[in-house]
Amino acid sequence: MAARKLRFIKPEIRIVGVDDGFFLPHTHGKCDVIGVVFRGGYWLDGVMRTQIEIDGMDATEKIGGMIVNSPHHGQLRVVMLDGVTFAGFNIVDTSQLHEIVSLPIIAITREKPNFDDIQKALKNLSFSKERWKAIANGKDVTEVSMREGKKTVYIQAVGIELDIAKRVVKSTATRSNIPEALRVAHLIASGLTSPLQQ
Amino acid sequence: MAARKLRFIKPEIRIVGVDDGFFLPHTHGKCDVIGVVFRGGYWLDGVMRTQIEIDGMDATEKIGGMIVNSPHHGQLRVVMLDGVTFAGFNIVDTSQLHEIVSLPIIAITREKPNFDDIQKALKNLSFSKERWKAIANGKDVTEVSMREGKKTVYIQAVGIELDIAKRVVKSTATRSNIPEALRVAHLIASGLTSPLQQ
Repeated sequence: MAARKLRFIKPEIRIVGVDDGFFLPHTHGKCDVIGVVFRGGYWLDGVMRTQIEIDGMDATEKIGGMIVNSPHHGQLRVVMLDGVTFAGFNIVDTSQLHEIVSLPIIAITREKPNFDDIQKALKNLSFSKERWKAIANGKDVTEVSMREGKKTVYIQAVGIELDIAKRVVKSTATRSNIPEALRVAHLIASGLTSPLQQ
Repeated sequence: MAARKLRFIKPEIRIVGVDDGFFLPHTHGKCDVIGVVFRGGYWLDGVMRTQIEIDGMDATEKIGGMIVNSPHHGQLRVVMLDGVTFAGFNIVDTSQLHEIVSLPIIAITREKPNFDDIQKALKNLSFSKERWKAIANGKDVTEVSMREGKKTVYIQAVGIELDIAKRVVKSTATRSNIPEALRVAHLIASGLTSPLQQ
């Protein structure tokens, strides 16, 4: 399938925001990953879920599969990720994810990624070269000023023109400095995977 | 703690909407129950989770505990339930839940509950008298017309004046005939508890 080009941004553009849930760092096991479908910055349309290995190598494939196999895939226009490292150092290769889902990918972080620190940390892990290659595939980081310049976020965008990516991020951050799809993905992922409340 | 009386409805009134996830009817086991905190009909503020027994007797206690132990409890003003039967015939006794959480309870259904059918179904279950008593504690059903009379929902309200309960239901149903807290609780509960997408 040819990747969908995004040129116009409708206020109700369908976005899936992806974030991981709670996990114990440096352990073996699985971590929940949640995808939340939002219409622009306005309302929630659906939820999807997959599981990836803590510090594993399957984030790109599992998140890609979750999106492609979801009933929402046909309506989606953008994938937003909470950074590119999931469940520890299970790296999403944004170029490869773009190929799998045929949609623009925008990874967003509040802090500027420190690639020197990441590269050092990767040295202690298996497949460190492969992980670094996945990181490097989406290494260009762009600063986006939010809330009339009062706050800044950092984006890595693939399969979308940078000025359009910036506009999507700004226009869907209706309640905070982070687009609603990602803010709510974080609330759901952390709320559902913390110890049971009873 | 004295129950909080609700007299004024702020547009951003904090509501928790509670719904159950996927389960196989007539089996033994647990079913996820999700609570979604919404500010009025507008935005999601948090998510909580518990588990109850399929056809069990613990819905009131577990849902009550989930709400009371959540960090959101102090801000909440109303609890909304997707009806009073969870995970099959695990009945929420709305009067008892009201006592536990010290908040008004509004159970909402799209169809008018058929108490004759429910009473018949309960006869095949253990504790049928106790279950029926829990149902009977919230048996008064009120019709609420939504969307300028085009649609109808049915509510059972405890600890809140009926006209105020109606206003809360109407004013928070911003995207459908169902208050946002319940619409989104349903999307999350069903999206997260269906088989994994990968």
